[in-house]
Amino acid sequence: MRATARAGKLIGVGVGPGDPELMTVKATRALRQADVVAYFAKAGNPSHSRATIAPYLRSGMIELPLAYPVTTELPKCSAGYRDALESFYAHAAADIAGHLEAGRVVAVICEGDPMFYGSYMHLHAKLAPRFATEVIAGVTGMSGCWSAAAIPIAQGDDVFTVLPATLPENELRRALARSGRLPRALYVERGTMAEEKMIPLAAKPDDDAPYFAVVLVPGWNHRPGAEPGTELGGER
Amino acid sequence: MRATARAGKLIGVGVGPGDPELMTVKATRALRQADVVAYFAKAGNPSHSRATIAPYLRSGMIELPLAYPVTTELPKCSAGYRDALESFYAHAAADIAGHLEAGRVVAVICEGDPMFYGSYMHLHAKLAPRFATEVIAGVTGMSGCWSAAAIPIAQGDDVFTVLPATLPENELRRALARSGRLPRALYVERGTMAEEKMIPLAAKPDDDAPYFAVVLVPGWNHRPGAEPGTELGGER
Repeated sequence: MRATARAGKLIGVGVGPGDPELMTVKATRALRQADVVAYFAKAGNPSHSRATIAPYLRSGMIELPLAYPVTTELPKCSAGYRDALESFYAHAAADIAGHLEAGRVVAVICEGDPMFYGSYMHLHAKLAPRFATEVIAGVTGMSGCWSAAAIPIAQGDDVFTVLPATLPENELRRALARSGRLPRALYVERGTMAEEKMIPLAAKPDDDAPYFAVVLVPGWNHRPGAEPGTELGGER
Repeated sequence: MRATARAGKLIGVGVGPGDPELMTVKATRALRQADVVAYFAKAGNPSHSRATIAPYLRSGMIELPLAYPVTTELPKCSAGYRDALESFYAHAAADIAGHLEAGRVVAVICEGDPMFYGSYMHLHAKLAPRFATEVIAGVTGMSGCWSAAAIPIAQGDDVFTVLPATLPENELRRALARSGRLPRALYVERGTMAEEKMIPLAAKPDDDAPYFAVVLVPGWNHRPGAEPGTELGGER
């Protein structure tokens, strides 16, 4: 049986970088109106997005935790890894579809912005052909970090690039050093959260980093009145 | 006379892509508590950011419009252009400094995110050495656009890049066509605003685009279960 668009609604809700105040007005409204709130978490770990929305949770809401499989023992490119993730997303989508078919509004809360490196899009791809959907943009983790650090990240004709940190940190560091950008690279950990930490990357003593970590390299060389070496990021 | 940090506070407030509901809770709170709200606008034009915050404006607030000089007759790399902009920012910073020295909280509202291609950072650079400052991250215009279009823009190991549209649109279009990406490129104009418009770039009949326009090219080739040609963006 194929559900109609009227049967329910899936909403991908961006909850921003971690500070509950950095949620949008639209996101808080969606949470108030949803019947079910679903969130991702690593199996056995608390959900960060669930912590972010705690101030806005309505009593009587149905909570639907979606626990990522533990895949640390599987190589990332292996068929086993892909199968484990694909099976996880298929089951998560089926659980959500059950609620949508029952006519419920399901808010899937997403750290940062749902369509920007987010897990939500896997569910969206599976469910959008069958159900009404809405995506609520959120403040990205990186915006939260460079705002907390007050670093102008890009201006004018600057090209802005996000490189997922799949390279070993030592290699990224050497590449930054060779290009002369290491002195203005800032390491930010858990930006906008209570445990926020930021230090110049050059001063970081180790190569360890948690999931919520980013290295910021400000551009902004061509602003009116700019002089070489006066970028704000470099001065911090 | 040098003002102390207690004399006032400068807040760069990201107001998001245009939909007032996409402002953060923190931004609305900052507006409620500010004494002065300052905003950029092209001379003779209404301010877009002022329109976005209209629902949150408190009566009795001091409004400080900052009118960009008209520079259309000046080449962008000319000394005249740079001088006109530099003089504009110097005067704007001086106007704001006057309010800060009088002990007022000044909220400079910024479309999207203040530190991401925003004019606010010019004021921040001039005033941060003398006054207390805070930057409130906002949803970027591009996030607003790809969320409105429900396009998964980047996933997994995707590298994400922002190219300012300083190339002629025809050239960008040819580059997209050569790389095989034109079929999945989406043109979005005034995303999340009342006049929002989106069409496949390939179907756009002309090369005209307003200031609030973006071309989205989704990545997301390496998701679990992905098959070539099944990217969501390409299907729209």
